[in-house]
Amino acid sequence: MIFKIRKVQMVYRIGLLISGLLFFVHSHAQVNEDFDFDTDNAALDIIGFGSLPALSERASTNFGDATLVFRYAILLTNAWYDATAAYHPTAVGVYSHLGRRPAHEATNRNINIAVMYASLRVLNSFLPTYKQTWRELFIDVGLDPDDNSTDLTTPIGLGNVAGNAVVAGRINDGLNELGNEGREFNPLPYSDYTGYKPVNTAYKLRNPSRWQPDLQRQGLGLYKIQQFVTPQFALVEPYSYDDPRQFYMPPPRNSKFRNRRAYRQQADEVLLASANLTDAQKVKAELFDDKFRSLSFSVSTNTDVRNLSLLEFIQFDFLVNIATFDSGIFVWQEKYRYDAVRPFSAIHKLYRNRLVEAWGGPGKGTVHLPGNEWESYLEEADHPEYPSATTCFCYAHAQAARQFFGDDDMVYALTIGAGRSRIEPGITPAEDTLISYSTWTDFAEECGQSRVWAGVHFQAAVDESAAVCPVFGDLAYEYMSSLVDGSAALRPPSKGRPVNTLPR
Amino acid sequence: MIFKIRKVQMVYRIGLLISGLLFFVHSHAQVNEDFDFDTDNAALDIIGFGSLPALSERASTNFGDATLVFRYAILLTNAWYDATAAYHPTAVGVYSHLGRRPAHEATNRNINIAVMYASLRVLNSFLPTYKQTWRELFIDVGLDPDDNSTDLTTPIGLGNVAGNAVVAGRINDGLNELGNEGREFNPLPYSDYTGYKPVNTAYKLRNPSRWQPDLQRQGLGLYKIQQFVTPQFALVEPYSYDDPRQFYMPPPRNSKFRNRRAYRQQADEVLLASANLTDAQKVKAELFDDKFRSLSFSVSTNTDVRNLSLLEFIQFDFLVNIATFDSGIFVWQEKYRYDAVRPFSAIHKLYRNRLVEAWGGPGKGTVHLPGNEWESYLEEADHPEYPSATTCFCYAHAQAARQFFGDDDMVYALTIGAGRSRIEPGITPAEDTLISYSTWTDFAEECGQSRVWAGVHFQAAVDESAAVCPVFGDLAYEYMSSLVDGSAALRPPSKGRPVNTLPR
Repeated sequence: MIFKIRKVQMVYRIGLLISGLLFFVHSHAQVNEDFDFDTDNAALDIIGFGSLPALSERASTNFGDATLVFRYAILLTNAWYDATAAYHPTAVGVYSHLGRRPAHEATNRNINIAVMYASLRVLNSFLPTYKQTWRELFIDVGLDPDDNSTDLTTPIGLGNVAGNAVVAGRINDGLNELGNEGREFNPLPYSDYTGYKPVNTAYKLRNPSRWQPDLQRQGLGLYKIQQFVTPQFALVEPYSYDDPRQFYMPPPRNSKFRNRRAYRQQADEVLLASANLTDAQKVKAELFDDKFRSLSFSVSTNTDVRNLSLLEFIQFDFLVNIATFDSGIFVWQEKYRYDAVRPFSAIHKLYRNRLVEAWGGPGKGTVHLPGNEWESYLEEADHPEYPSATTCFCYAHAQAARQFFGDDDMVYALTIGAGRSRIEPGITPAEDTLISYSTWTDFAEECGQSRVWAGVHFQAAVDESAAVCPVFGDLAYEYMSSLVDGSAALRPPSKGRPVNTLPR
Repeated sequence: MIFKIRKVQMVYRIGLLISGLLFFVHSHAQVNEDFDFDTDNAALDIIGFGSLPALSERASTNFGDATLVFRYAILLTNAWYDATAAYHPTAVGVYSHLGRRPAHEATNRNINIAVMYASLRVLNSFLPTYKQTWRELFIDVGLDPDDNSTDLTTPIGLGNVAGNAVVAGRINDGLNELGNEGREFNPLPYSDYTGYKPVNTAYKLRNPSRWQPDLQRQGLGLYKIQQFVTPQFALVEPYSYDDPRQFYMPPPRNSKFRNRRAYRQQADEVLLASANLTDAQKVKAELFDDKFRSLSFSVSTNTDVRNLSLLEFIQFDFLVNIATFDSGIFVWQEKYRYDAVRPFSAIHKLYRNRLVEAWGGPGKGTVHLPGNEWESYLEEADHPEYPSATTCFCYAHAQAARQFFGDDDMVYALTIGAGRSRIEPGITPAEDTLISYSTWTDFAEECGQSRVWAGVHFQAAVDESAAVCPVFGDLAYEYMSSLVDGSAALRPPSKGRPVNTLPR
């Protein structure tokens, strides 16, 4: 097999264009051509839309990897909030207190410009290899990406100063974003520095109560073994409370192999759900696995429905992101503590080559298959099972929204076209399927339950997250209230906790 | 962070276009608009150019994963050869003997058409999710992708029958392409069925003589652990010899930790090479890591230089691919047998936090760094160290070419533009760098040595491959000669060897 080099180089060039430039030329051109600073929302229409493809490409194709996705979201929403606090009558920022601008300056135009420059500072730090892309986003809407003004009487200065302060505030917060924890050379951004080691290998389940990294297929025929993603997220400084050790979940007793009956019963519950999977459950499982399509869509829709102003939208978006980010820190602490087994390991262990009734793989429907050939509908995320992170995020998010709006009403309606499933493309759903919710309560409940349908969680992991995690919505709202009324103290640059404070 | 769903869906749609369609619309449009069946080469200009991006996307971005890349290449080149044998005065195919067409039918047009249909059968089997892409390649050059004719008096019939025979001949050859070895449900294509387990984990080097899977960064901050890619490649049926157990390499004695002095010495050689890395060595290391830019370019350039006819080109391309594929089967046998440590593990083990002089990471040049922070210039491929697969491929390829042409002359000249390094983009090489060779011997020697420069191999792994692997060029040439003179027997569909014949 050969190719003339001229052509191979052409393929390379095209590949580079596709992944680096063309993608963005396409996407932001479509967004920006009619962007209006006086009436539109730069946070959503330019920054969000323009940077999402880079995040997908560099972090997580399906936005299923929570820590990196929420890192991106919290940095941006924090920067938006801090950069625009001066346009609010009383609000102060988290990492900068930049004074107060007169009311007549609190225009959408100024707010949008401040948001743009604050975003630029965050994006250049968080996704530095895309600097050229961010420049183009700016040039396309007539802004100067080289304007480094720190004049706090202008939206550009407010954006720059606030954005840089957010970067400085969070860069050493314990997530190891720079990759320099414990090493000077060859940095390993976001790598574990806690020394986490799974007790099981992908090849052998030595301890059936504990997490087993899975061997997962990548593309055509490469297989890679999971690694607990950012275990040190448990050590990151939260926004809305002091120390995650003040929260606690009971142990996952049913995941203890010595509790044989309970161990088998919770595995059988997952098999039963797998055998009874409906098209609606499949597409909901996929929806809630994607943190943007689920939690972002709920915010944007309800921002519209409630007619939020630009400043209110920025508060709301930052609020729900504080709730999810801070709940995630707690969830990682508990995942680290319990290091619990996923359903696939338990089912393979319990049933080996005995037949079970379950979903039989993409397009196969419900079949009888050997227990050790069972797979969950969704691939498991890169962390131990208990508690359910997705459930916790949804409950924290829902409670924050309820607090913000003062009631449980919400609007959510998304139609999944026939055959648009990611797992069973062309097959599922058989017909266009409407996913709709009218209360935050229903939304969060189905979000949580979808993790059992998907086969990636036992029921207890969902139930315990549902019980505990609304508190993170309350705490986020309390903290946000103190920011908005101006009573919050300026926060010093954060430093994560030392490793030896990690509970095990 | 939120995005209006309308826009998120637009991003998804664009993403889909990019990865699935637009890429090919772009690439094959550029290729096909002026394609001439009477004078051009469909194998290169349409099939190669049109399917390479899919391979990159689904198998191996940098074409560094040998087994899947060579699988693709051997299936296509075999199909091209078998489909056109009837146009040669004496040749017979490997998996089909389709008679003889009169000399006046042996036109470039007929040969190109046979190549196209043979390729379609292979591609639909090997990369089935891209069927729509292959259809478009056909439609663009005015061929009917639905023509399933088996009329052996026509190039379409020859292509279809030969292509299908190659697929049938190879689909169960031991590589587990269908993923159904040992399981009926949830197939795992190309997954290991030999039960290979590394003795070391990514977290702990229990046995410093043996292979340790590395923890490798993917994108922004996900880390995954290597898995020996297709260990069962050792069990696949070769083309040019009966059983890889007739070949053998001596044990990697210097990799035995008990041979302390030798163990340290070979590690120090790698460090010395790392400390003295030149720009030319860096870009050569990257070149030879990419099996298309190195081994494909050598074939296409020398096809032109030697003025090969279309049938001769097809023979030559199939020949060198038999040489590399069959040498790979042997290399995998030895890698499986010895399961030898990579330099990174040995260097981390030997030096821990003591300073060594070496390359300090992208853009850092030569520094003094703690031994356990050292990284190889290239990331290690997903298999044990000894022997060097790349070296073996290059020596087998070079020897096959020497046999085919009857001399050692070759033309190879490729300029790497300033800053075009993949590892040190924008920095390396400092100036445009010409890589050129005038003999196959020099080409193979630098190919092998580049694995030490890259820090992924010890010298012995290169030297032993260099000593043994030319034989696979000889054997491939012998087999090809028997095909071309018509004496080769029709080969029955292959079945890999049983697992218990794997030497350890």
